[in-house]
This record gives sequence, structure tokens and C-alpha cells, in this order.
Amino acid sequence: MEKPYVLGLDMGGTNSVLGIVDARGHVLARTSIKTQQYTDINDYIAALYDEAMKIIEPVGGIEMFRGIGAGAPNGNYYSGNIEMAPNLPWKGIVPFARLMSEKFGIPCHVTNDANAAAMGEMVYGAAKGMKNFIMITLGTGVGSGIVIDGKVVYGHDGFAGELGHTVIDRTPNARICGCGGRGHLECYASATGVARTAKEIISTTTKDTLLRKLDIDNITSKDVFDAAEAGDEVAKEIFDYTGTLLGEKFADFVTFSAPEAIILFGGMTKSGHWIMDPVVKSMEEHLMPLWRGKVKVMFSDLKEADAAVLGASALAWE
Amino acid sequence: MEKPYVLGLDMGGTNSVLGIVDARGHVLARTSIKTQQYTDINDYIAALYDEAMKIIEPVGGIEMFRGIGAGAPNGNYYSGNIEMAPNLPWKGIVPFARLMSEKFGIPCHVTNDANAAAMGEMVYGAAKGMKNFIMITLGTGVGSGIVIDGKVVYGHDGFAGELGHTVIDRTPNARICGCGGRGHLECYASATGVARTAKEIISTTTKDTLLRKLDIDNITSKDVFDAAEAGDEVAKEIFDYTGTLLGEKFADFVTFSAPEAIILFGGMTKSGHWIMDPVVKSMEEHLMPLWRGKVKVMFSDLKEADAAVLGASALAWE
Repeated sequence: MEKPYVLGLDMGGTNSVLGIVDARGHVLARTSIKTQQYTDINDYIAALYDEAMKIIEPVGGIEMFRGIGAGAPNGNYYSGNIEMAPNLPWKGIVPFARLMSEKFGIPCHVTNDANAAAMGEMVYGAAKGMKNFIMITLGTGVGSGIVIDGKVVYGHDGFAGELGHTVIDRTPNARICGCGGRGHLECYASATGVARTAKEIISTTTKDTLLRKLDIDNITSKDVFDAAEAGDEVAKEIFDYTGTLLGEKFADFVTFSAPEAIILFGGMTKSGHWIMDPVVKSMEEHLMPLWRGKVKVMFSDLKEADAAVLGASALAWE
Repeated sequence: MEKPYVLGLDMGGTNSVLGIVDARGHVLARTSIKTQQYTDINDYIAALYDEAMKIIEPVGGIEMFRGIGAGAPNGNYYSGNIEMAPNLPWKGIVPFARLMSEKFGIPCHVTNDANAAAMGEMVYGAAKGMKNFIMITLGTGVGSGIVIDGKVVYGHDGFAGELGHTVIDRTPNARICGCGGRGHLECYASATGVARTAKEIISTTTKDTLLRKLDIDNITSKDVFDAAEAGDEVAKEIFDYTGTLLGEKFADFVTFSAPEAIILFGGMTKSGHWIMDPVVKSMEEHLMPLWRGKVKVMFSDLKEADAAVLGASALAWE
């Protein structure tokens, strides 16, 4: 009998979501564990396995599964390894596909989490029918999946598409990135980047702001969104600052692969027009004339968990 | 009879070189005209035609030619147009392939000049056998041709790979680019960019320098090279400044497509290690740890005129 299911794993810096996916792209069940809780990769995989079995047994056991597709930060499509991921607890080179495959007893394939999201978007989401687009994931980090001519770009070594680690600030005051670099886009446009921007702006402005009432060390983009909705000028300033930097880099990305669209995905997209408006304004200002008005910026239209899980699962059918 | 030849046109901001190429990639004859001398595109094509006939007649006339491949700034592979090229005398959209085809009576295909150089490098040069590399042309402007999975990247609209127009300086003092943008790499790493850097450094330093004896408005990278070879510290400083900026952007480019190599082409490559050393040092410093020591930076090993002419000519065989 043809095995009817695959597992899709979306490993983020914070959560790891595992879903059961059928051949029509439906996520039948999902479960999750906290990524940071396991400092040993074997403990992580053991915990994931235990959780997985709770949803696998009810659909007939592991015999019903063709394989596992995993999207992980710095996941390498060619080698199956996770290599030197700055936002994960495991340093160096982790032979993730092999370890998963040994534990679960079925084949496992790995890609970058953002590449997996791009595949999900192309097959099921906003990029359906597009052959050239860039997916930008705004989460714990800033990831990217680049699609050219209908194919995810892996590059010479399998690691292409790390646009969160391009430089946006070359000044001596630039923020230091988790990867050790300076002034990377990720230090400004990730969840922690936005929190840091909020903290900096709140502590230097004399303006009245709703955000001052919150614990300044734990402000989230959701808090900033709520304040902006309530008419808070400082909250708008935080989105303008973040969106302007993002849009400026998007103009750079367009010079590279001339995509039809840039698709935004992840927590910050919930901020809607507050983040979208400054992104588009800044991108258009910085684009070469020949691209002005030609490149769409869109939000993903897949449910956040589903895009990455579905995208990752697509690897297991291949 | 199978037509044995094609024409390859390398249109630069300064010179336009036309060559007769045979099926084995030999350039049998070449001629050239000055690009800037013709403010009307029809005059340009008429002049090119007259020059071309002087080398075409001796090999048997236009009947011996299968077609024309042209590499031109902002040349569009999909439409055959040259569109809004900042360094050419013709503004707006020029239907170049159609006009050439009508004048010469054989098919004409167009691509970006740097994409043509990348094709030449892949088929005949330093990138032979590589499937992922980036070609950077350092000439009147700074162009780029990006090859991923063995194919030139054209993007959604045919204009992908304009890396000279990525931003390296975001400060208020950033140089203004020919395209209207601010702080683009081209303003610093092109021939005019280097001349401008030389002028700025010479007029602000109190150091003794051989370059001060030259006409400060007409210093070339050749002059700077000669001075560096003679031990001039200011000349070295000019190359260090230029190379550091280039290397910094190269690190950004690597995050995009993870190439096996970045290949440098054009006038400045004659400066050899004076430019190469700071480029490599800066790129390595700015690369994410996972790419350090893995990406080659090389000079083109084709003769300067040949790479672009051969690359362009390859379009005519397709």
C-alpha cells in the first residue's frame, strides 16, 4: 500500500512545530515542543519523537508515513546537516537528517526554515503561479527563501538565501548580530530587533507614549501594534523606523533577482499596514527607476504555522 | 549551407566592440565605435553597420552569419529592448534587437553586458565548469552577471543582476549615482568612482604622493596602480578604500546566492593584488562564519574584449 502521510517539521528558534500532512496538503494534526529547552540534540529528537507518537499512533503508526521534511535554521538541503545556526542551542555541525531518520525509522530531508516557508507559499499560498519571488520571514530571526525560475536557490553549498545577514548599518554604533556580524538586517527587523528599537526610542524620546507603561525589556511587536492602533505616535515611529530599513534592503534584493513579489511572513506581519506602509514607501524610494511600481510586497496568506510545515513536508514527497 | 559565423556585440558606456565569432569560440575579427558619439540610436546603428561591413565582407558577407548577440547596459533578454540605461546616450526604451535585426537583416538577441560577460566566462573562461558564480564588471559602471545552477539569472522582468546599484553608503554625504540613487556601489568601484576617491583622498591628505603631480581631474586606476607599484602610500590607500567597500558588498552578495566564486572583470582588475588583497580581506571579515574561506575571488582569465564579445555571441547560437 502507498503510504498516505508525511511529517513536516518547522523548527524555529523558539518553537518546533511538527505536522501530519496528506498528499493533498492538508495538515491533519500538529504538535510542538520548545526548541531552546534541549541543549543536547539527542534530547531534542527524543522529546520530538515522544510528542510525534501521540499524533502518529491515532492515524495508524509510523508505517503510514513516507518520510519527514524539516525546515530548520541553517538546515542544509545537500548534506542534511544543521550547520552553525546562531539561534539554536546546538553549536557546530549537527547531522540532523541522519539522527531523525535513525530515530523515526523513515527518511528525513532538511532545508532552511525560510526555504521551506517559500516552498509552502509557492505550492499553496500567495506565490502560487509565481516563478520569481523572495520570501522574508520576520520571526526570532530574519530568514529568507529565494525562488528563481520556479526553484528554491540553494547555491554552491546549500546555504544560499540568508538575507537577514546582509548589512543595513555600517556605523560604529551598529547592533551586533547573533552570528557575530555587525549591523545585520536581522538585528533590526526580527522580533528582538523591534523590541530593542522600541526600548531605544522610548528611552530617548520625551513624547508621551502608551508603551512607557509596559515593562521596557519585554515589549513585543504586538504591544507596539496595539499602541499604534490606539493612535500612539511613538509606536508609529517604531514601525516607520523598522519598515524603512526593511524597504531599503528590499530595494537591494530586487537588484539581485528582480522578483515579481516579496512575501512577508511571521509575527510582525500581524502589524498589517503599520509595517507594510513604511516598507513599501522606503522600497519604492530606493528602487532604481526601472523597478518602481513593478515589485509587489505582500503578506503570506497561509496560516503562520501551516506555510512552514507544508513547505517542509513537500521535501518528504520528493 | 550551415551559416558558420555569428556577431557578438559588447556595448559599453564608452566603447562598443563588435566581433566575428565562429562555432568554436574564436574571435576572427573585431572592430569598434565610440558609444557616446551617437545621440540618436539610428545613427549609432548605422555607424556600427558601416564598421561591421568592413570585417563582414572579407569573410563572405552577411549571408555567412546566423545572427547577432548583443550585451548592452540594461539590455533586456526577454524584450530585446535597452531600457533606461543611465550610462548610455539614449533615454527611455530603445527596441535595440528589432532595430539591429532590421538593419543587418539577421536575428538579434540582447542581454545585459555583464550577463554576456558571465556567459563568456562560463563557456570559455575562469568559470568553466562552475554552476554558481557571480561576475562583477568594474568598468565605466559596475555591472554584474549572476549564474545559479548553470543559468544566468534574468528574474521576473529580465533585469536581474544590477549589483552595482546596491547601497554601500547610507550617510548624508553619500555619492549620487548615474541612476539617481544614493550611495550605490557603482559610485565607488567604477572607474569614475575610483577617480573620485583619488581626488578626495589627495585633496584631504597631507601625505606626500606621486599622484599630486598628475591632473587631479583625470586620474585613472592605471595611474593609481603605477603609483602603488612605486611604493606610494596614498595610492595604496585608494585601493584599500575601494577594495574594502567592494569586499563588504561581496559578503552581502554571498548571503544571497552562495556562489562558488566571484569573478572580477574590467579595467580595475589590471591593478592585480593592490585591489584583490583588500577585497578578499574585507569580504572574509564580513562573511558569516559558515562561508569564511569557502568563496573564491578571482580575476577573469579571458582577454577583456573577448569575454563580453564571446558571451554576447553565445546568444546568437541559441
